[in-house]
This record gives sequence, structure tokens and C-alpha cells, in this order.
Amino acid sequence: MKKIRKIGILTGGGDCPGLNAVIRAVVHTACRAGIAVVGIRDGYAGLIHKDVRPLALPEVSGILPLGGTILGTSNRDNPFQYAEPGAGGKVEHRDVSAQALKTIEYNEIDVLVTVGGDGTQIIANTFFEKHKLPVVGVPKTIDNDLNGTDVTFGFDTALNVATTAVDKLHSTAEAHHRVMVLEVMGRYAGWIALDAGLAGGGDVILVPEIPYRIEKVCDHIRDRAARGKRFSLVVVAEGAKPEGGQMVVARKVNDASDPIRLGGIAALVANQVEDLTGIESRYTILGHVQRGGSPTPYDRILASRFGYHAVEAAMAGKFGHLVGLRGNEIRTTPIQEAVAVPRRVKAGDDKVLVAKAVGTCFGS
Amino acid sequence: MKKIRKIGILTGGGDCPGLNAVIRAVVHTACRAGIAVVGIRDGYAGLIHKDVRPLALPEVSGILPLGGTILGTSNRDNPFQYAEPGAGGKVEHRDVSAQALKTIEYNEIDVLVTVGGDGTQIIANTFFEKHKLPVVGVPKTIDNDLNGTDVTFGFDTALNVATTAVDKLHSTAEAHHRVMVLEVMGRYAGWIALDAGLAGGGDVILVPEIPYRIEKVCDHIRDRAARGKRFSLVVVAEGAKPEGGQMVVARKVNDASDPIRLGGIAALVANQVEDLTGIESRYTILGHVQRGGSPTPYDRILASRFGYHAVEAAMAGKFGHLVGLRGNEIRTTPIQEAVAVPRRVKAGDDKVLVAKAVGTCFGS
Amino acid sequence: MKKIRKIGILTGGGDCPGLNAVIRAVVHTACRAGIAVVGIRDGYAGLIHKDVRPLALPEVSGILPLGGTILGTSNRDNPFQYAEPGAGGKVEHRDVSAQALKTIEYNEIDVLVTVGGDGTQIIANTFFEKHKLPVVGVPKTIDNDLNGTDVTFGFDTALNVATTAVDKLHSTAEAHHRVMVLEVMGRYAGWIALDAGLAGGGDVILVPEIPYRIEKVCDHIRDRAARGKRFSLVVVAEGAKPEGGQMVVARKVNDASDPIRLGGIAALVANQVEDLTGIESRYTILGHVQRGGSPTPYDRILASRFGYHAVEAAMAGKFGHLVGLRGNEIRTTPIQEAVAVPRRVKAGDDKVLVAKAVGTCFGS
Amino acid sequence: MKKIRKIGILTGGGDCPGLNAVIRAVVHTACRAGIAVVGIRDGYAGLIHKDVRPLALPEVSGILPLGGTILGTSNRDNPFQYAEPGAGGKVEHRDVSAQALKTIEYNEIDVLVTVGGDGTQIIANTFFEKHKLPVVGVPKTIDNDLNGTDVTFGFDTALNVATTAVDKLHSTAEAHHRVMVLEVMGRYAGWIALDAGLAGGGDVILVPEIPYRIEKVCDHIRDRAARGKRFSLVVVAEGAKPEGGQMVVARKVNDASDPIRLGGIAALVANQVEDLTGIESRYTILGHVQRGGSPTPYDRILASRFGYHAVEAAMAGKFGHLVGLRGNEIRTTPIQEAVAVPRRVKAGDDKVLVAKAVGTCFGS
Repeated sequence: MKKIRKIGILTGGGDCPGLNAVIRAVVHTACRAGIAVVGIRDGYAGLIHKDVRPLALPEVSGILPLGGTILGTSNRDNPFQYAEPGAGGKVEHRDVSAQALKTIEYNEIDVLVTVGGDGTQIIANTFFEKHKLPVVGVPKTIDNDLNGTDVTFGFDTALNVATTAVDKLHSTAEAHHRVMVLEVMGRYAGWIALDAGLAGGGDVILVPEIPYRIEKVCDHIRDRAARGKRFSLVVVAEGAKPEGGQMVVARKVNDASDPIRLGGIAALVANQVEDLTGIESRYTILGHVQRGGSPTPYDRILASRFGYHAVEAAMAGKFGHLVGLRGNEIRTTPIQEAVAVPRRVKAGDDKVLVAKAVGTCFGS
Repeated sequence: MKKIRKIGILTGGGDCPGLNAVIRAVVHTACRAGIAVVGIRDGYAGLIHKDVRPLALPEVSGILPLGGTILGTSNRDNPFQYAEPGAGGKVEHRDVSAQALKTIEYNEIDVLVTVGGDGTQIIANTFFEKHKLPVVGVPKTIDNDLNGTDVTFGFDTALNVATTAVDKLHSTAEAHHRVMVLEVMGRYAGWIALDAGLAGGGDVILVPEIPYRIEKVCDHIRDRAARGKRFSLVVVAEGAKPEGGQMVVARKVNDASDPIRLGGIAALVANQVEDLTGIESRYTILGHVQRGGSPTPYDRILASRFGYHAVEAAMAGKFGHLVGLRGNEIRTTPIQEAVAVPRRVKAGDDKVLVAKAVGTCFGS
Repeated sequence: MKKIRKIGILTGGGDCPGLNAVIRAVVHTACRAGIAVVGIRDGYAGLIHKDVRPLALPEVSGILPLGGTILGTSNRDNPFQYAEPGAGGKVEHRDVSAQALKTIEYNEIDVLVTVGGDGTQIIANTFFEKHKLPVVGVPKTIDNDLNGTDVTFGFDTALNVATTAVDKLHSTAEAHHRVMVLEVMGRYAGWIALDAGLAGGGDVILVPEIPYRIEKVCDHIRDRAARGKRFSLVVVAEGAKPEGGQMVVARKVNDASDPIRLGGIAALVANQVEDLTGIESRYTILGHVQRGGSPTPYDRILASRFGYHAVEAAMAGKFGHLVGLRGNEIRTTPIQEAVAVPRRVKAGDDKVLVAKAVGTCFGS
Repeated sequence: MKKIRKIGILTGGGDCPGLNAVIRAVVHTACRAGIAVVGIRDGYAGLIHKDVRPLALPEVSGILPLGGTILGTSNRDNPFQYAEPGAGGKVEHRDVSAQALKTIEYNEIDVLVTVGGDGTQIIANTFFEKHKLPVVGVPKTIDNDLNGTDVTFGFDTALNVATTAVDKLHSTAEAHHRVMVLEVMGRYAGWIALDAGLAGGGDVILVPEIPYRIEKVCDHIRDRAARGKRFSLVVVAEGAKPEGGQMVVARKVNDASDPIRLGGIAALVANQVEDLTGIESRYTILGHVQRGGSPTPYDRILASRFGYHAVEAAMAGKFGHLVGLRGNEIRTTPIQEAVAVPRRVKAGDDKVLVAKAVGTCFGS
């Protein structure tokens, strides 16, 4: 096996608290093993635009508790389908992967560590399979919906932000006899809504995996009112949808044909509940607040472990693999396997059963 | 002057962190002076519906750090114009103040302490002026827009919640090169937006008092981009409005004729900025999260002082007055004077000047 | 198998954020299954003193986010060796277990759920083995040192408090060029120190399981100073001890013969470092602050799952067992097995390796 | 008046959350006015050692929410009495102010902005009076004991940390029937203890300005126990002292002749209370945790205003003055006047009266 002299690292997709902890651990661990590290700016975009810089200990000093990523990230940077303005202003997609590979070669990068979600990892795997590029993946998704790991860093931080919001809404809802609707992240997987609802004692939890019926939701709220509980808290994932209905996450003005879309699912649910039960309803849309801020200790530790083991995996030649947490141990999984299907909430999940046992309604 | 034997206390209007600290201080201070206290449920509604109960030390034990109000509150409880379903299902407004006065008399309440905003205090003052009811007001408004006091409790807590959100958005905005729009409370006064923007280093602050021009806002964001600042943070009060424009706070489905309304000002600004600058924009609507949770130490101390001085004012016969903070001292002001005009942000306010000096744009 | 009609629940030993979440989940789950619940005050003491009261849904409403335990707890309540003042004022230990059993019988408790650490569970197991009392254990230890579960609730909360302190010390240490010593909980197991040190980027971590040499610690601090790092952060478990040395946790005045004891290990380390390196050193003793406050979402969810599964285990007749987390699943283990040996930090633990890789010194 | 072209800024004495906000506001405001800024490292030490560097907008980008100070600080840097190792290793104090003045002249600093407490300001004033150096002071003291301003930045942050600790101790104290003693900062002024005690509902508050009698403290704790309150919380300033007694803050091993000193006042009080009342007592020493971390919004706003007005004062030629908050306005005061006497808690202070009214004992 070829000795590794230089590791390149990039962070792709939506940002996530803990990315800097991964970068720091990679740099420290590599440094100890006599391996140099270079950072690639803005995900794969940095490979395309040759935006690469050395990362040594001073560059990662003090970044452990910081949110965001010192490397920047990008959502639209697939080198195999790179979007560029073409003739007549129309966007065209081209394969610029050769350019990316040239940057890797020029910078003498022996192994590429890709920190990102399924989008980022599928690209990494394509480089690995088609071009034999040695890649090691580090899973990252705020929604916690990646297979190949029990948990991803960033999720605990987002959960803390969401639960803090549930706690705060509780006191004000109680004082006012209101229904409070809190929209949290999760377009396709409802883990944040489920966990924040369970942790915060939400009365209703709506997730994309369990389509809801608004009448069920209203019945539950009315039942509570009848038992003297003068308020109810609804935690709703942005991708939640009614039985037989559609997602309503888009919020552009040009969706004006469908006015509900502008306020999202939170507005829809709050309005329907108010109309059907007659109880005043208010909503909060947490949005990117959930992605920001200093990672929790849990996330910092997990991210540090991932960074350390990514370098270990690189040195062990585990290319095309993703590091991940299995129980209490860090293991690697082939990327292909990890990204095949997302990890989604199941109706029989232990946490769903527990939530139901403590009185939560899932609207189904 | 008649010796006071019993004080009644109610909390009216929107809830506010610190209400429980006021109640606790009133009960303790009265208790020490040999005065009994009764609590009236849900603001003036409790007077109308005879919902009154004794408050002694055990009832207020442990409530100091709690958000909300153990007495409940109500927004629609004006005894002089009480809304009730009349003939044919139509809502009719009647004067039921006699009923309220009867409750006061029956419960032998010598002084009524009314904790609330201008709505609550105007009613209190009407009781005082028309019916000689001895009232003492304690100012409460999350928006900090009441005259008669330099600061109201609850504001510092709301400011902390809003600033935490700004801080969190910073890291994620920076990682992604985005514009983040944060909508905070403030329909008629922009204090929360101004202070959270100043404290969080917001790049743009939009308040109701300073109508904005969206082109100015976009110019500022473009200027930042040109200087290499790849993100911008916009803090917008819910009541902010464009020059010559209208407020867009209503968010009911039946406002569907005007789809913007559903997402509020945050959606409007985010969409316009994205369309005009081409930079991806996202928004967060904090909503009632700002009203909830445990009050900050500042608010707990201020609220405790207000409670203490409300009883002192009652014993000194300062009826029809409001306690308030002036510099570092608690003083009383006639309610009438305090509620005459709201305290609003002025373009020449010191904090506006400081915000401008550190590079913030107000869109004007 | 006998049908269960009533469950008794007690919380024993040091308190722990999440206890109320367990109690709430037990009551809800039992209630749904038609089982009554009674709460026993102050651990086993309530059995001895007949302090038992019904727990229904209203009693557990709103307690999910609260620290402490609504049942109270006690450290000195072993019914098999109950300490009572005997003749001549001397404390005598008596077996009052018959009295405890009588309380259980009188209250028609079919199953006793014991929430507590090894002390509490050993007593539970003795009742189970000697008296055939149907018991189900729920593990609780802030130090996370119980076998039978991968993690205990309360630990994540304590870790958050400790890491917040490390973060805060960082900025002040850096401004001043100082050594900051932070003493955290952990008499026999160093998990809080290890995790808070790893999460906070501590430069030195001292745990009971890895005896330290002060010269090694000082060398590391001097090395950092030589590299321009003008400050260092030492996270020390209260039970940490020098190679060949003793614990210094006792802090009573009557330990005055050994003055170090009064300030504990934090004072000892801070003083030695200052004397040996000449760099100003300061210390913080976090103490019970780590046990207090609202549990983190992680702890609330884990505690809720434990409570739910304790009732499930009771209904399944799994007596003499402890519920616990294994990977992502809740499983039961015989109490005897779980309490046989504590779970302690090993020098080869993955987190120790990661901490070393990012530059942390363990003093050995 | 001479036109100002360059401002020098230094931060002296203990660090304080908000220092970076001052620096940022000074740089922005000066920059807008066409004035250059240079930063002096480590307080006056930077003047002595010629450690001066330009501060422009990029240097202050992102520092608003950071604790500590990007300029560093120093406690032992008085240029009029500078401590240096002399002949035979003995420390000698020399006047090196000429060297400091030379650095100012060489760097063409027109005005020196000194951010610091009384020590820092007295030195600044000596430069102003003896050497006609144009100085503008910005008050900074975590203890809030400076005259010339109603409040200093950093205090609100320290108060938040201390109150959070009181809140956390509450739940654990209640579960265990214990006395918890929390030592907070304040050697000569008890503002943090007073405010944290008031905000957290402390049962006993001990401050340096009101010498206590331990019997009074124990009587209060026993009274509470008799009323069924099974726990008590004591908030004690590090400089609190018994009637006729001494401070016990020093904690060096070589104070071993007086073992109490090692654990400080917290250990002393906890031990005495336990011995006299028989109730288990525990203590926490918060230490520098109070100085660290991100400043609260209140402190960031106040610090920004101070920075802005320091530049305004410089441009207005208000040399030898200190900016400060008076009510809601920023005013300047001659430094000499401001540092003449410290601002200390008085027995008749409104907050002391309020604390007493809600049942707090001051031990006197």
C-alpha cells in the first residue's frame, strides 16, 4: 500500500454544527502521523476552481466550539453535472470532473476526505469507482437520516435548539390557552420533530413518514381542552403532509398561486386547527437557527471521533468507505451501502411507541 | 387613609417572562406588611367570572424562575366592552364592569394591582377614574414600548432569545454565502429588532418606525458581497414596512387574496432580496418563542422590584399610578400620562447612531 | 403470572437530571395499561416511614423538563442497615426491612420500580432475592459508571454544564495567559472529565483511572507556552490522583490536619502548576451545579424510554432486572450482573485515543 | 483643536465579556471618521514592549460575540512602577513611563483609549495629568464597582452565569434537603452576589459590605427547615466576611497555616453551617467561569455604545474623561472623579430592601 503523504478535506452540502470539530481532528491526527492536510474551499467547487490551501495546527486552533465550517460549503457543486450559465443565459450542466481530478493531482492529494450527506458521498463514490480516487467519507446530515451510522453529528445540536423552542412555547401557550405550532427541519425524515416532540412533551408530532389527518389532530386538542389542558403544542417537520396530500415546503413568492406555500406547513396546520377548533393558534418557523451555533458536547465528541477515524481509515486503505457510529464503536461501511436508502422514522420505532405511551398524537 | 387589608392582583394582555416574579414579590411584600393577597385568574376575565383565589407564600414558592403566569392571562376581557355571543350568533360588546366591581367588593379587595400593557392599564385607569377603585399599575410589554418606565421586564429575555437566534444564523449564513432574514416581535415599536440587531451584529435592521426601501437594503448586501462578505443578516420587526407601504403581519388563510401575508414580512423581504440580488435567502419566524422561557436575571430583578414597589405604592395611597424604572430608581407616574403615547424608536436614538457607526443599514 | 395492579416507584441516591422524566413515563405508561402508581418519598426512607402517595397524570403534568425529583431522594436509607440514633447518642444500624415490606404490602404494591445507582439497586436486589419482592431497576448515575447500560440519563446534562464551563474558561484563560483548572464530578470514574475535556478542547485531562505525574502535566503546559499558546486548561475529575498518591476529595474543616483537602484536587493541582511553571493558575469547583437544572433532550428521551420499558418489563415479569441502553435498543440485564463491577475509563478507550490525537495530555 | 488622525487602544486589568465589542465599535466609528486605529497588546505592557499593530475592519470582523479580548490584557504592567527582576533576582519596581511615551510618539498615536478598571484608569490619568497625554477612559469591571457609570459591561454576563448556577443548585438542593453554598466574584463589592441572589431566589446573601454573623445565617436556615423548606441556598461573595473577621480569599498552599483559606469563604461557610445546623452542606466555587464566554446582548450593546462614544469624546477633546452610562444616556466624567471611591452595596440599597422583602437573610 502506498504511503499517504497528503490528505485533502472538503465539506459539502448544508452546514452542520460539528464540521469544524471534524476538520480539527483530521488535521491533528494526520499531523501526528506525519501526513500533511490541505483544505478545499466550498465543497467540490474548490476542486473545480483550484481553491485549495494548507491546513496545519494553527489554522484549526480554537475552531472546536465554532458552528459553520472554516472551509465553506456549497449545495450546487457536482463536478459530474456542474451548473454553468450557457449560451443565451440558460443554465447548462457539464461534466467538469477532469478539472477536479487535475486539482487533486496538482496538489498531490493522496486521499480525499469528504464530509457530507448523501449528495456529497454519492459524488465521492463516483470518483472512487470511476476514477479510482482514494476517498474516505464522513457522514453529515442534520436530519440524521443517513444509513451507515446510528447518529450523525449536528443532530443533537439541532435537537437542542428545537427542544429549547418547545420549552419556551410551553410557558406562553399555557398562560394564553393557545395552540402553538413549531415547524422544525426534516423534509423527508422526521427525526428532529420526533425527538424534540418527545423531549419537549409535545402533544402532537407530525412527521413526513406518518401522514396525518387534521381531524385526528383537532380531536386530540379538543380532548385535552376537555380535560382542562388549556393549551396544546404541535411539533411539525417541514416535510410533514396530510394523508393523500403533498408537501408544502416551498415558500417562494412565485408560488403565489398556492398561498399556503408561503407560510409552509406550520401556517397550514395553525390555520386549520384554529378554524376547526376555534382555539387561537400561533406558529414559529425555526429554519436555519437549527443549523447554527456552537455544537453540543455530544456532537463535538462524535465529530472528533469521526475525524480521527477518517484518518485511521485512510491509513488502513479503507477507501470508498464511510466512518460511522455503531452502538458505541466507530466502524466503516462501503459508501454505496450507506447511501442506498435513507434512515427514516418507522411507525413501530421505540421512540414513537414511547411518545404514544406518554400521550402524544401522531395524527394517524 | 384607609388601612389596606387585602390586595387583588391580575395579569392581563400578552404574557411576558417576569410576571411570576412580580406576583411573588407582591405576595411576599404584602405578607410581611400583614396584607392578604388574592389572585384573579385570566386578567379581567377573572373579575367578570368570579375566578379569585387566595395567594399566600406556598402558592408563590418556586415560581421566580418560571415563564408564563400562574394567574393566566387574557387578551379579550375588557369589562367595559366585554365580547359575548349575542342574538343570532353575532358577537356583541356589553359593559359588565358592574359585575367586575361586585367581585372586587365581595372579595373585599382594597387595592387592585394590574400587571399589563397599555390595554390593561387603560381599563385600570377607567376603574380608577369612573369608579374610584384604588388601582396600582405595573407596566408589562415585551416590546418595551410603554412610557412611564425606561424598561419593562420581559424585554431583556426576548432580546436574549432573538440575539441567540442571530448568533446561530451567523455561522450558518457564513458557511453558505446566504442572506438570512430573522423576523422578531414588534408590531409598532422596533426595540427588539434594534437591540438584537445591534447585539448580534446584524447587517440590516428594519423597524416599523423607519420605513425602508428594498433597493437600499439590496445595495447594502451587494456592497458587502463586493467586499468579500459572502453573507448578510437581516433582522426585521414584524411590523416593519416599506416606504409608503403597509404592514404585512396578518397570516390567516383567508388573507389568501394577498399571499405575502401568510409568510409575513420575513417571507416578503427574503423573497425580494433573493430576486433582486440573486443571493439565496432564507427566513426564520421566531414568533412566541420570544415570550417564553425563564426570565433573565435582569428581568427577574426588575420584576421583583416592580412587585415590591407596587405594594409600597398601594400602602402610600398612590392610586391611579404606575410603578416604573427611571434611571436606577423606581418611581411612580400617573397611568394616564404613561399610556398617552407609546415609546418608539427614533431615527436619532443613540442606539440607532451606534448601529449605523458599526455599519448597519436601516434601509432608509 | 399474576396480573399487576399497582406499581410503586422510588428514586434513590444522588439526584440526577431526568428522574422526573422517568417518573412521568412510568405513570403514563402504567395508566394506559390500567395499572395504578404510587410514589414513595425520599428513596427507601419512604418505605420505612410509610411515606407513600398516589401518582396519577395530574401529578406528573409539567415535570418533564424539571431537574431534581418530585419524589425526593436520600443517601442514607438502606433498610437492611438503617442508621438510627441508639442508646447514648451513638448511631446504630438496624435491619428495618420488615417495616419496608409491610409498607409495600399495606399499599398493595405489586412491583417496585427502583430508580437509582448501584447502592439503590443492590438493596433492590436483596429484596428480590431474599424476599421475592418483584423489583425492576432503572439505572441512574451522573458519573455514567454503571454496567448494564451504555449510557445513563443525567450524564449528558452534567457533560453540558461542564463543557460550558470549559468554553467560558477558554476565553478568559487566553486573555490572561493563565492556567485554569476545572474540577468536575467523578470520584471513581472519569467519564465527565474525559468527555468535557474532549468536547471543550482541554489541554490536560486528569481522571481517577489514569494516575498522573505532575511533572508530565507541567511539561505539557510549558511545551504549549513554548509554542506560543499562552494559556492551558486542565479538566480534573474530583477523584483524580497522582501516581502512588491518594484521593483528596474530602473537604471538611476537621480535615485541617491536611490543608490541601479543603480545596480538593483542584486547589492542589492549581497550586502545584503555579509553583512549578511560574504561570498564574486559577481553579473552579463546579460541584453540584453539574447535577442541577433541566435535563438535556438526550437525557429526557433516554429517561422516558427507561420509564416506559420499566413498566413493560414489569408486565413481562422481568423481575430482578435493570433496563438499559444497548446500542440503540433498550434491553434488560439481571441487576446482580449490572452492579458487579463499575464501568470505568480504560487507557485504551477510543475517546482517550482521540483526545491524545488532538493533543491532550493525561499526565501519564 | 488638533485634528485626530490615529487612536491607540488597550485593554487592561482582568478580562471582561464585552471588551471585543468595545474594540470593534472604536475601530468602526474611527474608520468612518477617517481616523486610523492601532491596538496595543497586553495592556500597558504593549506600550513598554512596543507591541503595537494596526486595527482595521478585517481585524474586528466577527469579534462582537467573543469573550476575552483580542488585544490581550495584563494585571502587572504599571509603567510608573514596572516590576522587573533586578540584581540578585529580587523584583524591583522602576518608572518606565518614558518608554511607553516613546512608543506612543513613534506610532503617532494622537489619543489613547484605555479600557479598564480603576487601576488602568489611574495610570491613564497620570499620563494625562503629568504628560498631557490625550486619554479617554472606558470603564470596565466585572464587579460593577466603578463610579462614573451606573453599570459596566461584563457585569450582566457574570450575573447570568452566577444566576444559572443558583437555578441549577435549586433543583438538586431541593431533592436532597441540603444547604448549597455558591461562591461568586466580588472581593470588595457584593453586586454579583446581591443580584444573583435576588434573581435566583437565594435564601442567604453574604456580601463584603454587610458583615455577617454565622448564627443569624443558621437561624434563618433552621427557620426554613421548621417551615418545611428542606433546603437552603447561600450566595456568598468571595470577599464576604464575618462581623469583626477577615477576608479568606487567598488560596495558596503556603497559606497552609490557615487551612480555611484553601477552600475560601465557601468552604468556611459550608462547614460552619453543617456543623451548627446538622444539615448536609455542599459548596461550589464558580471562579473565572464568571468572566468567560460570550457577552449577553445587554453587555454587547453597552460595550458598543461605550466604544462609539469613546471616539466621539476623543473627537470632542474630552481628554482625561471616562465615558459612562447615566440613566439611559452616555455621559463623560473626569477620570479622577470616577476612580475616587468605589461604588459599593449599601444596606439601604433598593435591591437589598427588595431581597429582604422576599425573605432573604443577609446574616446581619
